[in-house]
Amino acid sequence: MKQLFFSLLLLCGALTLKAEDGHQLWLRPHPAAPVTVVSAAKNSLLLATAKQELQRGWQGAAGANVRLTIKKDKALRNDGFRLSATSVEAATEAGLLYGVFELLRRQQTGQPLAAGVSNPSYELRVLNHWDNLDGSVERGYAGQSIFWRKDSAFAVTARDKALWQAYARADASVGINGAVINNVNSSPQMLSGPYLARTKAIADELRPFGVKVFLSVKFSSPALLGGLKTSDPLDPAVISWWKNKTKEVYALIPDFGGFVVKASSEGQPGPQDYGRTHADGANLLADAVRPFGGLVMWRAFVYSPADKDRAKQAYNEFVPLDGKFRDNVIIQVKNGPIDFQPREPFSPLFGALKKTAVMPEFQITQEYLGQSTDLVFLAPMWEECLGSDTYQAGPGSTVARCTDGSVYPQRHSAMAGVANVGLATNWTGQDFGQANWYAFGRLAWNNTMKSSQIADEWLRLTFAESATTAAGQPAPAAADWNAHFLAPMTQLLLASREAAVNYSMPLGLHHIMSATYDHYGPGPWWAPDKMRADWTPPYYHQAAANGVGFDRTTAGSNAVSQYHEPLAAQFNDPATCPDEYLLWFHHLPWDFKMKSGRTLWDELALHYDLGVHQVRQFQQTWDAARPYVDAERFATVQNKLRAQSGNAVLWKDACLLYFQQFSRLPIPASVEPPMHTLEGVIANDQRPQRQRR
Amino acid sequence: MKQLFFSLLLLCGALTLKAEDGHQLWLRPHPAAPVTVVSAAKNSLLLATAKQELQRGWQGAAGANVRLTIKKDKALRNDGFRLSATSVEAATEAGLLYGVFELLRRQQTGQPLAAGVSNPSYELRVLNHWDNLDGSVERGYAGQSIFWRKDSAFAVTARDKALWQAYARADASVGINGAVINNVNSSPQMLSGPYLARTKAIADELRPFGVKVFLSVKFSSPALLGGLKTSDPLDPAVISWWKNKTKEVYALIPDFGGFVVKASSEGQPGPQDYGRTHADGANLLADAVRPFGGLVMWRAFVYSPADKDRAKQAYNEFVPLDGKFRDNVIIQVKNGPIDFQPREPFSPLFGALKKTAVMPEFQITQEYLGQSTDLVFLAPMWEECLGSDTYQAGPGSTVARCTDGSVYPQRHSAMAGVANVGLATNWTGQDFGQANWYAFGRLAWNNTMKSSQIADEWLRLTFAESATTAAGQPAPAAADWNAHFLAPMTQLLLASREAAVNYSMPLGLHHIMSATYDHYGPGPWWAPDKMRADWTPPYYHQAAANGVGFDRTTAGSNAVSQYHEPLAAQFNDPATCPDEYLLWFHHLPWDFKMKSGRTLWDELALHYDLGVHQVRQFQQTWDAARPYVDAERFATVQNKLRAQSGNAVLWKDACLLYFQQFSRLPIPASVEPPMHTLEGVIANDQRPQRQRR
Repeated sequence: MKQLFFSLLLLCGALTLKAEDGHQLWLRPHPAAPVTVVSAAKNSLLLATAKQELQRGWQGAAGANVRLTIKKDKALRNDGFRLSATSVEAATEAGLLYGVFELLRRQQTGQPLAAGVSNPSYELRVLNHWDNLDGSVERGYAGQSIFWRKDSAFAVTARDKALWQAYARADASVGINGAVINNVNSSPQMLSGPYLARTKAIADELRPFGVKVFLSVKFSSPALLGGLKTSDPLDPAVISWWKNKTKEVYALIPDFGGFVVKASSEGQPGPQDYGRTHADGANLLADAVRPFGGLVMWRAFVYSPADKDRAKQAYNEFVPLDGKFRDNVIIQVKNGPIDFQPREPFSPLFGALKKTAVMPEFQITQEYLGQSTDLVFLAPMWEECLGSDTYQAGPGSTVARCTDGSVYPQRHSAMAGVANVGLATNWTGQDFGQANWYAFGRLAWNNTMKSSQIADEWLRLTFAESATTAAGQPAPAAADWNAHFLAPMTQLLLASREAAVNYSMPLGLHHIMSATYDHYGPGPWWAPDKMRADWTPPYYHQAAANGVGFDRTTAGSNAVSQYHEPLAAQFNDPATCPDEYLLWFHHLPWDFKMKSGRTLWDELALHYDLGVHQVRQFQQTWDAARPYVDAERFATVQNKLRAQSGNAVLWKDACLLYFQQFSRLPIPASVEPPMHTLEGVIANDQRPQRQRR
Repeated sequence: MKQLFFSLLLLCGALTLKAEDGHQLWLRPHPAAPVTVVSAAKNSLLLATAKQELQRGWQGAAGANVRLTIKKDKALRNDGFRLSATSVEAATEAGLLYGVFELLRRQQTGQPLAAGVSNPSYELRVLNHWDNLDGSVERGYAGQSIFWRKDSAFAVTARDKALWQAYARADASVGINGAVINNVNSSPQMLSGPYLARTKAIADELRPFGVKVFLSVKFSSPALLGGLKTSDPLDPAVISWWKNKTKEVYALIPDFGGFVVKASSEGQPGPQDYGRTHADGANLLADAVRPFGGLVMWRAFVYSPADKDRAKQAYNEFVPLDGKFRDNVIIQVKNGPIDFQPREPFSPLFGALKKTAVMPEFQITQEYLGQSTDLVFLAPMWEECLGSDTYQAGPGSTVARCTDGSVYPQRHSAMAGVANVGLATNWTGQDFGQANWYAFGRLAWNNTMKSSQIADEWLRLTFAESATTAAGQPAPAAADWNAHFLAPMTQLLLASREAAVNYSMPLGLHHIMSATYDHYGPGPWWAPDKMRADWTPPYYHQAAANGVGFDRTTAGSNAVSQYHEPLAAQFNDPATCPDEYLLWFHHLPWDFKMKSGRTLWDELALHYDLGVHQVRQFQQTWDAARPYVDAERFATVQNKLRAQSGNAVLWKDACLLYFQQFSRLPIPASVEPPMHTLEGVIANDQRPQRQRR
């Protein structure tokens, strides 16, 4: 990883850019035309930022006057704005800033100006950083934390501040207005004085960009940190401990956002330890932050080894509590019922909680999707989830509309994304990981936005002038660039997630990755003695001589019943269940006849093989794009794609050879023969230091 | 590796064969028809063996009388024989045995009986076992030595004897009549009492099959073992030490074959240590064995880091000594001037030594050809060498005719093969390695035999009834078997060596394997500090911005001058130099225009890619052959082919990415994009325990 120092030079606006290290994200420096910013609003941090950004990036008519106006307007909600070529109107200063960024984005991408009103789909658009106080990042693949350091957690340096500002500016440019700056698996120390002091310092740098700070808290903090005998949410001492601790936080950070809690989940303490409910726990904290306008985001990611089907448990635990939560509590629900797999059906909690605010949680960091190696554009996955119809309030009750307040009245709305940001010079490890950070912000602002437009915007902002940054190259003609870079690269981005599904977990397979600590690569065989079954792949794929897949039909775990009709019936019947979810809901014989007319076994093999060939096609596309990309990012991404190509073949070989032990059927002749042996990949998977191509 | 014990059961003729472990080689048990063997010759070990083999394997008319006759016959040379449907005539008892094996081979393969005379091309057909006295085998990939054991080198067990008999029988069945039972990098202890005693025990088991024992000796044995002050070949004490030691050996083994010497080579001691010549050294030992009719095989594998071109040195050292060797000395010359690479031009010593007996040394063990993983049938490589015209005595002076006595008078003739035999139950590790053992024997008997016939014979003998050994399968119809197994598998065998050249060292590239201890996989980058240059790949490929290849033209090292015209001129001109040897003799620019019209770079890439696709085709061919192969060998070979497929891709990616650093040219679009990164393969190559797929 390159030295951070160099990139800070860039931050300081040094445009004599020698090597392209990707640190500038989609906010690349452009020679700006002179512009006059007119505003009647009283000066403020946010307004100053808005003005500065306008002057820094204005691509419109030289000497233009741009008016920034704060005004009430029935058409404007939250931080929404009304845009024209030379004016931004909003009800809030943050709205002005978002309007400015939209104006500049339109100018820089050469897109027609979307004059008129733009309102955010969600009031809160928040990143969850799974950053530990020692500087490590859980499921982080882009280096250490930008917020925390092992050694000097409390000495805030100029470099820290510059980096936090650059981070907040990137957030603001896509409408992100909240940051949970520590891991949901939280340390009680988070609420201790020294760490709160550093939190205040972080908040001070994020504030000018409208990004509020939130904290993850450990539910047992009253006992662990406060020294109380219990952390029982109904215990008066516990209640007052949280009230006082919350006061202390708000005294430091008046605009503090609130708390995120992972409770009674994967060994984390929670209200159930004291015989209380999630509602008891969430309401305890909600009452503590209410006087300050704070929020509580309470995660629904709960499951226990006792249950026969992990996919059903969040629903079973939370639906009975519907309506029992305070109105400043939002239940944070992962897109799918298991855990951020390459493809899952939407979580049945969406739409099922009708009297409780619910927010989607997406994972931007690619825990199960090749981490910082594979190029996977996630917007299509999120678009797929947000567009899924739950039917909970009749047709059109999409996940998007069930969470943004369109279907159910909810005082607060939010969308969360687990960040992929670290100290890597290019922020996200894989340069294309930046596209997922960008996409999350854009979808959180507009949850009906199309992946194709997001890809188009990001590619233009990130690579438009890339070719010219390569030593002394002239800028290509726009038509040429559109035809030979933008068009094929957009196709690559849009196809990349389906390719990852194909080469890793097609047809509804899930959680068959290498289940050793790192979740990287295939591991359908992984099942050590005494390991809890619901952490092992065989629990999920159920491969046997009689077939493969998890039976969640009415004849099986009956998870289908958690979906509203007509989905329950559709999912329950293999004839009507979409191929994408087939093995998620069904255990089927290897010779099951698919809609294609092929057997399940052949279809499976063809999907794996297709995934491999898709990645090779991505390599060809990228190689052809060489003239339009700076040498540094070209070479880095080319190497990542090579490694991804190897990963795809490894997934294909490992899974086909593993499943073949049960199917006892030949790999179809049209499929590329394996270049690995099952023994070899298992041995490699079990080596302490696994071989990464 | 399976337990040897089980295979010994097979040796004992237990035909209730459960699993097929390949131990029977091409000598598979067949229900024999009754036959009467008539012979006037006085009984002897060899005659008894001949009779026993006839009765054990007779497939002719039941109750037939077969006559074995010893008689002088001008048409018969050495162990040659005259064959008819029911008689074998020979001048020696060994000849009768070889005639019997030929008769049975013809019956078992259903080939027409080649009535008439068959004479061996070489008097001596010998395997060199690079077996160390501690039981390890240098360049052995089939387990430990069948001759030596660390712990109990001297306790000869019944299991030892049974194994040595089975080994000798396999040798005799293809005409092999000599075995050098210890490594050419020899220990002086070889000539000590205890090891000579075990050698006698080995000789006793090999004798009934006409296989003579030879020993490799360390030239400095007089000093190291005898305690003399020197091992100077002209020193009287040294001379008499060797005379006495030789007497001692012959007292134990009256038919002892003689000595093999690797001297003044790769750090081994030799006459040059005392300012003497190779002739002085060889003649010393030749005089010692002469009274007993023994031979000395003196290796010409010599090179020093001083010289600019390793390929020239054997020629430079030995040609000046032509005519100075005793007539019971044979100079043993590797097929190529470097070292058993996948493809080399023939060694210029062939035909150049006109007054000295010369013998070819081939490597049966696959040191540079995928060891016990890759399926590579070596007969085509040896056929290519033996058929090469040296022009040294006019057109038609092939390597074969220059070594078998056809061109130059020589008292003795021989061919040596470095064995691939070990304690592995199937003898050779990879089941198809057996084909190379078989092919060596057949070519040593008939050095103009075609690879296609050898492949046909071996496949019939090894797999004809394989399908029926699979649980309860009926034998396939012959026509069906020929069309769906024999024909495609013959094509596979014949293509396999060219495939290996394509995916590892095409167009004359050589010695670019991983040069760490094991010579497995690619390593064009390997060049540690202070390593002698002629042990590092860059010395051989000379890749640079200006091109690739070793310039051995008149403008370069002038190695071409060691070849007789018209070869020297043909090799010297890139326009006439065969593509196969292009980079062996030339350093050419990356954009050099090939005969195909493509650039050198593109041609190189296409060869690597072709090699990968050839191996995948082999996988498909083998998978299709499944119905005709027993389950055990099918699965084993299928796994080896998978690993070979991975090896081929690794070779292709590693070499193309490495050379691309110099060529700076894109990999052609038709070539499969790399799935490895250069950094990754180099790191993997340098790991102590390299990753074997």
